[in-house]
Amino acid sequence: MIIYIAAVAWEAGKPLVIEEVEVAPPQAGEVRLKILFTSLCHTDVYFWDSKILSDLLISHNLVRIVESVGEGVRDMKAGDKVLPVFTGECGECGHCRSEEGSNLCELLRINTERGVMLSDGKTRFSKNGKPIYHFLGTSTFAEYTVLHAGCVVKINPSAPLHTVCILSCGFCTGFGAAVNVAKPKPGSTVAVFGLGAVGLAVSLLPKKFGITDFLNPKDYDKPIQEVICEMTNGGVDRAIECTGNVQASIQAFESVHDGWGVAVLVGVPSKDAEFKTHPLKFLQERTLKGTFFGNFKPRSHLPSVVEKYINKELEVDKFITHTIPFSEINKAFEYMLTGKSIRCVMSMQE
Amino acid sequence: MIIYIAAVAWEAGKPLVIEEVEVAPPQAGEVRLKILFTSLCHTDVYFWDSKILSDLLISHNLVRIVESVGEGVRDMKAGDKVLPVFTGECGECGHCRSEEGSNLCELLRINTERGVMLSDGKTRFSKNGKPIYHFLGTSTFAEYTVLHAGCVVKINPSAPLHTVCILSCGFCTGFGAAVNVAKPKPGSTVAVFGLGAVGLAVSLLPKKFGITDFLNPKDYDKPIQEVICEMTNGGVDRAIECTGNVQASIQAFESVHDGWGVAVLVGVPSKDAEFKTHPLKFLQERTLKGTFFGNFKPRSHLPSVVEKYINKELEVDKFITHTIPFSEINKAFEYMLTGKSIRCVMSMQE
Ligand SMILES: [Zn+2]
Ligand SMILES: [Zn+2]
Ligand SMILES: [Zn+2]
Ligand SMILES: [Zn+2]
Repeated sequence: MIIYIAAVAWEAGKPLVIEEVEVAPPQAGEVRLKILFTSLCHTDVYFWDSKILSDLLISHNLVRIVESVGEGVRDMKAGDKVLPVFTGECGECGHCRSEEGSNLCELLRINTERGVMLSDGKTRFSKNGKPIYHFLGTSTFAEYTVLHAGCVVKINPSAPLHTVCILSCGFCTGFGAAVNVAKPKPGSTVAVFGLGAVGLAVSLLPKKFGITDFLNPKDYDKPIQEVICEMTNGGVDRAIECTGNVQASIQAFESVHDGWGVAVLVGVPSKDAEFKTHPLKFLQERTLKGTFFGNFKPRSHLPSVVEKYINKELEVDKFITHTIPFSEINKAFEYMLTGKSIRCVMSMQE
Repeated sequence: MIIYIAAVAWEAGKPLVIEEVEVAPPQAGEVRLKILFTSLCHTDVYFWDSKILSDLLISHNLVRIVESVGEGVRDMKAGDKVLPVFTGECGECGHCRSEEGSNLCELLRINTERGVMLSDGKTRFSKNGKPIYHFLGTSTFAEYTVLHAGCVVKINPSAPLHTVCILSCGFCTGFGAAVNVAKPKPGSTVAVFGLGAVGLAVSLLPKKFGITDFLNPKDYDKPIQEVICEMTNGGVDRAIECTGNVQASIQAFESVHDGWGVAVLVGVPSKDAEFKTHPLKFLQERTLKGTFFGNFKPRSHLPSVVEKYINKELEVDKFITHTIPFSEINKAFEYMLTGKSIRCVMSMQE
């Protein structure tokens, strides 16, 4: 049992509380990690504010060092630098073995409701015997955490540790949507809907946020898809929707060119959303597909994204608008809620 | 001016009338063809029955011999065996030059309403000076017809002429949907919605109508997509919708497996149809795309489909359920309307 510092969401929507909590040792197939840097993302804020969950350790973007490993974990050892990811890769299931791009691992795919470890259905966190639940299998607002080894990606230790934590969520989601799913060709026109971290990562592809035009739908009397089609001689080659708003999804799809246009949905829609369009839009040879975490299989593919970052092929640093000590974590919430930050990195070593 | 025999749809929904009509010579970029065999398809019946059109020469599946060519036509000459196609390939536009698969030629793509030649806006058919309109740029229920050269595909003259006419519409639509768009891998599960000529052509791919299970949605209490997902451990790898019914389109999409499933829409929906689904179905890494004429560029790709048929790689013959003389053309309508035929071939040489 290790006693350590964590920021606990005891109550939905209320400021996080810095607490001393206990963490149990890793069980078979699990690893216990010591955090170095962490970051906040919209998903954390969404669930923190959702009133569904409480007694929770949130966050899922971070970089860590392996502290100890449980039975049967052979590919990591104490001292390894790792990125925990909110979705895993067991390596054995139909999705992990699929050659057609799926990363929706049957065992370790994202689960926003579980909050406990798979092996024994228990949490590894507690405070005076009261369990504190995990979040997205990662729970990174804490000095130590325990994860299933399938959610932990060993990375090149020469990566800049204070910034590489950004890669584990929104960045890969957007970047993968572009390079793995939309796959625009050189010279293609691409419309990106929504310019948070995910949308900006999409836009990295052409060149360092290589955006030529910004459109605000409120500036136009007609539907934005008509504006885009007029600007681009019939439609863009690719459209990528990063907001989760279902109207934006429909607009993105209807913005792509007939004959070859591909629209990719990235933003997560609300539970009661309905996608509606005329089926003739499909018959005119348009494609609509969705992606989760940019179709990256985390353990197979993230190490090479980290290599690209090390080789300065990806300008991840400009996503980090703020850096603060971990003890000021509630400031990160404020920056995000007021739209001041893209990503705010928090350091555990104050 | 040639006087010849044709079956004219003077009035929508009424039996065709065999008439002597006149045909003007081909203008620049056009060819005049003599028909050998022709066939009837649902699209003909749909428009014949639609009350939109009249004074029309319908049909668009046929094999012909070039009778004469207009100015500027260099790649065909009198005597060549050809397949006219209801959608053309100018070779010059953005779609024709696209490497991403489009066959929606800007100049010659299907136009169900034009009824006249592009060059001068006139029809080449008439009876006692009264114009008779073209249909889908082909109008094959006649001994002679005039087409834009971009809608005429020169084929290997050793192809069996009485059956190869089947290739020019429904067969290529279904076969191309499978091989060019859905692209199932060996061992994939494929669900085909609708078993007319198009659906049967899709099913040719695995092997000669290689269908293992037939499902009738009326036999089940739950939605057919749920039945399919239960039968196939989460969904089929590919689904191909050939009916044009928008509910079937939704069912096809919701029948494919998360992570990699691809649904392809082939059937043409009604004008007021609306495709509706939960956007999360896309986010779970499903793809929906549509195709027109199986994404075949007619002049570029059909000669090689004809070669496959000559080499007995495609079992087209079993699509032909009836063969009748052209003078009995109204029987072909009856066979189709009563569901007796897949394809009925008509011979001009009685
Ligand atoms: Zn995130
Ligand atoms: Zn797996
Ligand atoms: Zn047809
Ligand atoms: Zn063209």
